[in-house]
Amino acid sequence: MKVVIAGLGAGGFAAALTIKKWDRKADIVFIDPKPYDLMHPCGLPYALEGIISGDDLAHDQGLDKMGMSRVYARIASLNTGLKSLTTDTGETIPYDKLVLATGARPVVPPVPGIDKALTLESPEALKEILAAVVPGKNAVVIGGGAIGLEAAWALKKKGMEVTVLEMAEAVMGRSLDPDFSELIKEYLSAEGITLLTSVRAESVEEGAVVCSGHRLPADLAINAVGFAPDLSAARSGGLTIGKHGIITDKTLRTSAPDVYAVGDCIETFSPLLGGTFPVRLATTAYRQGVIAGARIAGKSGRSWEYTGSFMSFVSGVGEWEVAAAGLTSALAKEAGYDPLVSKAKGTVEPEWMAGASELNIKLVFDRESRKLLGCQAVGERGAAERVNLAALAMRTGQKAEDLLDLEMAYCPSVSKTWDVFNTAVENAVRRLNL
Amino acid sequence: MKVVIAGLGAGGFAAALTIKKWDRKADIVFIDPKPYDLMHPCGLPYALEGIISGDDLAHDQGLDKMGMSRVYARIASLNTGLKSLTTDTGETIPYDKLVLATGARPVVPPVPGIDKALTLESPEALKEILAAVVPGKNAVVIGGGAIGLEAAWALKKKGMEVTVLEMAEAVMGRSLDPDFSELIKEYLSAEGITLLTSVRAESVEEGAVVCSGHRLPADLAINAVGFAPDLSAARSGGLTIGKHGIITDKTLRTSAPDVYAVGDCIETFSPLLGGTFPVRLATTAYRQGVIAGARIAGKSGRSWEYTGSFMSFVSGVGEWEVAAAGLTSALAKEAGYDPLVSKAKGTVEPEWMAGASELNIKLVFDRESRKLLGCQAVGERGAAERVNLAALAMRTGQKAEDLLDLEMAYCPSVSKTWDVFNTAVENAVRRLNL
Repeated sequence: MKVVIAGLGAGGFAAALTIKKWDRKADIVFIDPKPYDLMHPCGLPYALEGIISGDDLAHDQGLDKMGMSRVYARIASLNTGLKSLTTDTGETIPYDKLVLATGARPVVPPVPGIDKALTLESPEALKEILAAVVPGKNAVVIGGGAIGLEAAWALKKKGMEVTVLEMAEAVMGRSLDPDFSELIKEYLSAEGITLLTSVRAESVEEGAVVCSGHRLPADLAINAVGFAPDLSAARSGGLTIGKHGIITDKTLRTSAPDVYAVGDCIETFSPLLGGTFPVRLATTAYRQGVIAGARIAGKSGRSWEYTGSFMSFVSGVGEWEVAAAGLTSALAKEAGYDPLVSKAKGTVEPEWMAGASELNIKLVFDRESRKLLGCQAVGERGAAERVNLAALAMRTGQKAEDLLDLEMAYCPSVSKTWDVFNTAVENAVRRLNL
Repeated sequence: MKVVIAGLGAGGFAAALTIKKWDRKADIVFIDPKPYDLMHPCGLPYALEGIISGDDLAHDQGLDKMGMSRVYARIASLNTGLKSLTTDTGETIPYDKLVLATGARPVVPPVPGIDKALTLESPEALKEILAAVVPGKNAVVIGGGAIGLEAAWALKKKGMEVTVLEMAEAVMGRSLDPDFSELIKEYLSAEGITLLTSVRAESVEEGAVVCSGHRLPADLAINAVGFAPDLSAARSGGLTIGKHGIITDKTLRTSAPDVYAVGDCIETFSPLLGGTFPVRLATTAYRQGVIAGARIAGKSGRSWEYTGSFMSFVSGVGEWEVAAAGLTSALAKEAGYDPLVSKAKGTVEPEWMAGASELNIKLVFDRESRKLLGCQAVGERGAAERVNLAALAMRTGQKAEDLLDLEMAYCPSVSKTWDVFNTAVENAVRRLNL
């Protein structure tokens, strides 16, 4: 069996490893143009800050030894009838099974001069940005999502004066409600980073970004507007594409026979929304890759069905952890729920412990079903931990009153007897009159 | 309504606060002999090590301002027919509702000279121990449970030569399987602490503890054998007592009318065992206190029922986190399960991140139902986090294949794309041929 996998990232590689687990003889060919095997884009801000080297992020996986091969190219055209594709290097490759794991590419906003802005998307781009970093000079980051804020922090640590421009009213608005976004804004402001919200970059010029008519000095401009699925191969093959990416079934099959798709290039099912939405998370891509691989290797059953994502997300914004899962209260309302928001603020460790750190947590419940719909957490540490718990609670349909039973292990160096999560649950139960 | 609460700890105080939430006029009287309101025993090892002061652990709660009062005494006799009790200071106090939150007391093993050993049970005992600490001299800790190991670490950090004696074959044997206990033994040995297992203290003498016929030099001996429920009040009142403590129903009512009991002094229900067992966790006591308080305040329904404990536990052993929930494989076998054990070892953060730390994780599944029965985690950090997830998975009846869907938020400063927890689940699924 010849399996062609377009895209060597978390999803594509997971698919390949999974196929090999059950079918050691499978002939696996990757198609990917980048000059190394795996690359960890989420590590780029840390390399920019200087915590690690950019070289730590690009890895040769030794595909030969794994019985896999590779073509350094992109798909130029896909013929799903003939089960064959042609690369942009002119090679024609037939397949028995194809996995599209083409990922997402940076969005280039329609801003005059945007090509002068650099995008933190690869170790090569990192080098360009590092070469442009001059302490005391000005950097403008266009986009206040996770990558924009992480890049802003790194540039600040490198000694630059940093301004972030965000079109929306609040940063990280897809994951956080405005009050929690505001916590981040306050934190970054205190750290000397300027966050401008509800503003639009109008043009990128030599040494400046124009924004609301003002020329913001910008010795370095970064484009961190976001990512969009790479759908060129899917389009060329005539696959069915939805609002957010390639459409697949629960087994990650696309509309074309023997063509699977996983990761950032597909629409992902959200049990909370009862529909699909875009997810750009390596964890999601990995799990989807495993399922596609298992299906290609002939496995079936519950274990190899994608049941949907609750979007567990964390970003290291400066010294803080910012995490979220499920729906914000705005998204919950949009989806037809009647959200009840419960918040709690407190220390992760007991107040009397040395170095106790503070955490803000927000839970969103549905008033009618009383089920948990979302969780946001912002603080020095422990944010992801609580959001992961919330994601499992959402996946298993926990109601506010069920979560009263949640037990979190206690030891003063790690946690409190009664966690902020427990307190937020108690507040919700009281307000729901349960 | 006059509510008497015997014992001012996590359980008793939670009951009082909960009653006041719904019934501000309730007359609440605590009976407790200790010279301060709340005390945090789990913090004592950190005070011994010097990270915090012993004074940080004892708190005045300002009971007057909360509309609560207090008698500094113990219950000497309880008459549940008359609904009245007499204290050891000779006072007779009637009640409408009584909560027994008398907790647990250190076990004094039948070892000659054991009174020469000190017990890390209170700020006063801490002062005595601190006065006996002499760098370079020898300390022997009798008991290799969490408190024994935490005390051993603290004494080592204070410059003493430390030996721990454990009767069982492995330390922390109630929470960990022997292989995971061994990890801790290796770690503490590398840190210069001597752990002797399968040995018994035969006598405590001046300057020595005799063990297997050898005189181990001991300028300081610590009794850390464990705790047993304080049942004196319950016995005097003729309450029904089981193998592990006072017997209660799901609303924490005892066999006597209007008498509730919570925390370390009761038997706690284990859904995994289908029976009761002893739990000495502040988190459990807190939740039980809340339920008893709510019931006393007239609440009813699902929110105010105790559904059982999964024993989420964590201890800071040196620089490590040791955590567990549910059943060890030995306990699972004893309870009639056919356990399948799946282990994984890996870094918490990506291998390429600076300062990535290692974590060992073990999951115990039931081969027949495929449900998760237990989790153990040992490493520098992240152990409690994963055990908390496992506890929620057990509570919601998750099977191995369900946990394939578990999403954990990824960001290089916090976590990996695919966590050791996910890997352990995948290993289990493969071995269960799912």
